Amino acid sequence: MGSPFDVTPAELRRRTSLKWHTYPEDVLPAFVAEMDVQPLEAVVTAVTKAMRDGDTGYEVGPTSPRGTAYAEAFAQFAARRHGWDVPVERTRMVPDVMLGIVEVVALLTRPGDRVVINPPVYPPFRSFLEHAGRRVVTAPLTPTGRLDLDALDRAFAGASVHLLCHPHNPTGTLHTADELGAVRDLAARHDVRVVADEIHAPLTLGDEPFVPTTTIIPDAIALHSASKAFNLAGLKAALAVPGPAADELRDMPEIVGHGVSHVASIAHQAAYREGDAWLDDVRQTIRAHGDLVAQTLVERLPQARWHRPAATYFAWLDVRETPAVVATGTDPARLLLHEGRLAVNAGPTFGDEGAGHVRLNLATPTPILRDALDRLVTTLAAPV
Amino acid sequence: MGSPFDVTPAELRRRTSLKWHTYPEDVLPAFVAEMDVQPLEAVVTAVTKAMRDGDTGYEVGPTSPRGTAYAEAFAQFAARRHGWDVPVERTRMVPDVMLGIVEVVALLTRPGDRVVINPPVYPPFRSFLEHAGRRVVTAPLTPTGRLDLDALDRAFAGASVHLLCHPHNPTGTLHTADELGAVRDLAARHDVRVVADEIHAPLTLGDEPFVPTTTIIPDAIALHSASKAFNLAGLKAALAVPGPAADELRDMPEIVGHGVSHVASIAHQAAYREGDAWLDDVRQTIRAHGDLVAQTLVERLPQARWHRPAATYFAWLDVRETPAVVATGTDPARLLLHEGRLAVNAGPTFGDEGAGHVRLNLATPTPILRDALDRLVTTLAAPV
Repeated sequence: MGSPFDVTPAELRRRTSLKWHTYPEDVLPAFVAEMDVQPLEAVVTAVTKAMRDGDTGYEVGPTSPRGTAYAEAFAQFAARRHGWDVPVERTRMVPDVMLGIVEVVALLTRPGDRVVINPPVYPPFRSFLEHAGRRVVTAPLTPTGRLDLDALDRAFAGASVHLLCHPHNPTGTLHTADELGAVRDLAARHDVRVVADEIHAPLTLGDEPFVPTTTIIPDAIALHSASKAFNLAGLKAALAVPGPAADELRDMPEIVGHGVSHVASIAHQAAYREGDAWLDDVRQTIRAHGDLVAQTLVERLPQARWHRPAATYFAWLDVRETPAVVATGTDPARLLLHEGRLAVNAGPTFGDEGAGHVRLNLATPTPILRDALDRLVTTLAAPV
Repeated sequence: MGSPFDVTPAELRRRTSLKWHTYPEDVLPAFVAEMDVQPLEAVVTAVTKAMRDGDTGYEVGPTSPRGTAYAEAFAQFAARRHGWDVPVERTRMVPDVMLGIVEVVALLTRPGDRVVINPPVYPPFRSFLEHAGRRVVTAPLTPTGRLDLDALDRAFAGASVHLLCHPHNPTGTLHTADELGAVRDLAARHDVRVVADEIHAPLTLGDEPFVPTTTIIPDAIALHSASKAFNLAGLKAALAVPGPAADELRDMPEIVGHGVSHVASIAHQAAYREGDAWLDDVRQTIRAHGDLVAQTLVERLPQARWHRPAATYFAWLDVRETPAVVATGTDPARLLLHEGRLAVNAGPTFGDEGAGHVRLNLATPTPILRDALDRLVTTLAAPV
């Protein structure tokens, strides 16, 4: 058994998804949240079997004996990985995390209500909430990527929901139990409910644990999915998990389950049940890639600033002070694409606070990451 | 190559989707829109390859060179099957047909606006529209399952959208070019826009053609998917197809594409490209099953009334006058489940107009359909 990252550029180019088919072939893609990995064999086997068996009908609903299979697989995973006791019977399946967030927010708010987010943050947070007719209020993270409790206190006034990203994308921040406790107290004071996107939870990289939001904030509702940690963005499914004091999922309309993909559910269940070793290999490589980024920046681009991610497979780089950005005043992602032939996610797409930043995807074979870092430092270190 | 319906009850029981896992094992399921078929080999091959290749990332968006692959596969299929010239570049992918309908209706209306449906009709029409904050107005079909133009004229007054089901589920009605022309004229007069769910279009059963709505109503928008005709409910993807005078899809938010499953797209493309022979085999069997239903009812349950479906794989049976229903006054689906151990879709779930009706799924091996019909006629013919 090799590493999940034993995959060649030629194999990657044969994939037909977004990462390898958005830019011309001389552009190295390090942008979207796809991992350049070999698939988990258990997932391949489960999906192949489902296809051969013609098992491609509708996902079974929660009222059926089989209706909690996904939640059970997740609960066992969550118990092993996070020491978390998931209330299987009270969960609800949703088509994917973002559609799930929209439906959960719909249960907790009315159109026009205010939802607080913490930029820089995953861009769909703002666009999905606004598309759903909610007003977005921002409480930016601190410069070190932590929740800013004073900013939250101000933003919570008049707000209905706090949409938390935990672990935080793009910074890779793991909110601590103390921070979550502070959010709980602030939210209680302002009558704000917490909804947590926890899709990156399995991707912790160091000793810092993932603390499930609902274990600290009892009336929070969390969204989970195997799609990020096991590279299954193309097979969508997700689970809404309520805290012990959150009852609203009982009122989730049955039609929300209509959009759940049965084959994706099968794939995710296999990942949750049999993916621990594969996942640990992936985490180990990403952690080593963090070392590589740190070393490269110190040696070759000392003007760049960043904080090592505690989770996720992203490096969130503040490159405002690098020579090329200073000299040109150009958005670094644009410089990297045009000068360096490297595609990263542009910081401003995560909010105004992302100006001068880029998000680099570390979930790729080491030689490809070296190539990406080389393009990055060569482009940004150059006094254009 | 056998028939797609060469599948055994034991094989079907091994499936884990809704149809075979909702009721106890002594209940024969003939309810939900899943087909009891062997999968199309081209789909199995394509999905298996995608899984082995790790090609499980995000679906490519419409701005990429590969972003129209699904639409191109569908356009070629539509040209072959319906003689229809689909405007590939103007289409938009959506996660599935119902979520697509909601997004298209959102482009054409505002919350509180009225949307006209034609009950008895696919139950999610009402529930999704209401969940999206639209008011539902009904213009029931005529007793023979045709569009009622007088009812439409009345319902269109003050309405914004007509959500057409074409072919119509559950009656299997194919609206004619003349009927669609009449809808076009009424809609123009009342400033109503037409949105057509055409998911059953490939499943025509006789000589009557499927007439694409947008070829008659230029400002209509249609929704298509391979999921129904190729039994891929568990791998969701769909396409919104505008008529020549419908420009609104340009304003479809990019985030709608976020929910599209790349692996489902691969599966559907294979079906559209290589599924013609398999589909024709399926249609031939379903047509023969229509004969079997007709003969069985004439011989053994003459009080039942129905109209042969011109498309879909459903028999919509009016069993109000059958002895057991007359004697008990009970909903026939409930009688069939409890007395006959046969699960069908209850008529009233399709609207009040469905009282005394049941929807029977014909897409099953002939011996299973014989068993289902036997349970149906034995139960309903009995003066309980």
